[in-house]
Amino acid sequence: MNPTLKDFDRVIIGIDPGTNVMGYGILGITGKKPVTIAMGVIELSKFESHYLRLNRIYTRVLGLVEQYLPDEMAIEAPFFGKNVQSMLKLGRAQGVAMAAALSRDVPITEYEPRKIKMAITGNGASSKEQVKEMLRRILGIPAENLPEKLDATDALAAALCHYYESSRPHPDKGNKSWKDFIAKNPGRVL
Amino acid sequence: MNPTLKDFDRVIIGIDPGTNVMGYGILGITGKKPVTIAMGVIELSKFESHYLRLNRIYTRVLGLVEQYLPDEMAIEAPFFGKNVQSMLKLGRAQGVAMAAALSRDVPITEYEPRKIKMAITGNGASSKEQVKEMLRRILGIPAENLPEKLDATDALAAALCHYYESSRPHPDKGNKSWKDFIAKNPGRVL
Repeated sequence: MNPTLKDFDRVIIGIDPGTNVMGYGILGITGKKPVTIAMGVIELSKFESHYLRLNRIYTRVLGLVEQYLPDEMAIEAPFFGKNVQSMLKLGRAQGVAMAAALSRDVPITEYEPRKIKMAITGNGASSKEQVKEMLRRILGIPAENLPEKLDATDALAAALCHYYESSRPHPDKGNKSWKDFIAKNPGRVL
Repeated sequence: MNPTLKDFDRVIIGIDPGTNVMGYGILGITGKKPVTIAMGVIELSKFESHYLRLNRIYTRVLGLVEQYLPDEMAIEAPFFGKNVQSMLKLGRAQGVAMAAALSRDVPITEYEPRKIKMAITGNGASSKEQVKEMLRRILGIPAENLPEKLDATDALAAALCHYYESSRPHPDKGNKSWKDFIAKNPGRVL
């Protein structure tokens, strides 16, 4: 029996936006256990027009948001690119994917590719194949269920990275609640 | 009496996307006469978070699309920018504005700033103030109705540029219909 959406405490959608292929991965959390709900790619190269591609991204991401009702969206977002032309196009692709989430009040967090790799494999410079292999082990995905396109595993990695980041305590960002703060820093309360 | 949307054969929304201020202008066409329906700006600088800004752009542009039911959208889109960072942000702002149009099946056409200026003033290097002054004359806008922010008149200029571009014959793109082609090129039909 496959689990249903109701079985998860939290659902995270990971997106790896691109202008030729966009990857997505849906992660469900039960207790502290992350489980793969779905992953795949949205093929865009068959559409010649830039607008048709943007439209496709918007409608497909909106479809995923409506189908899986994610609580959060994690986006893999490179901060630097080859040139201003490709960055403008990438920004548009990201923008329409974000609009699909924003239209359903799904909060978005973005992660640099390096940060995602670090979270999954412990090495910010690891290859996409290494990320895929670690995901297979961590999430217990049967090898035959792994998609060929690495955009899909990259997107799932973004979702898992977000789960790790949002679950661990952030000492650098201070404590999450005043109660925690008092408990941990009794000397600092007058 | 103000005209209602029903009085127009065609409504064009012009957008001048930016990450601090986004301008919009709504143009109505009756016969061959373009009329200003509305124009203004969406202030974004008050929102600190990038996502709040994107969300604001999406919801406000969607609101304008639902209010004025435009048949087409014209976007002012610079193809080159200072750096990859600013182009990525601009691309996202354009993307969410485009998503609002795409979600309501409104076709989008983009125009370079130079092309818009050329269409309105006859000079691709004219200033924003010159564009504003020409718009005032062409559309007969009372001086007191002109907004201070030039983003609004720039957006209206994009809409008017689109009207001109879509109305004039395109000799370089061939004739619009086979009937036109035969009428104009009788010798080429066997």
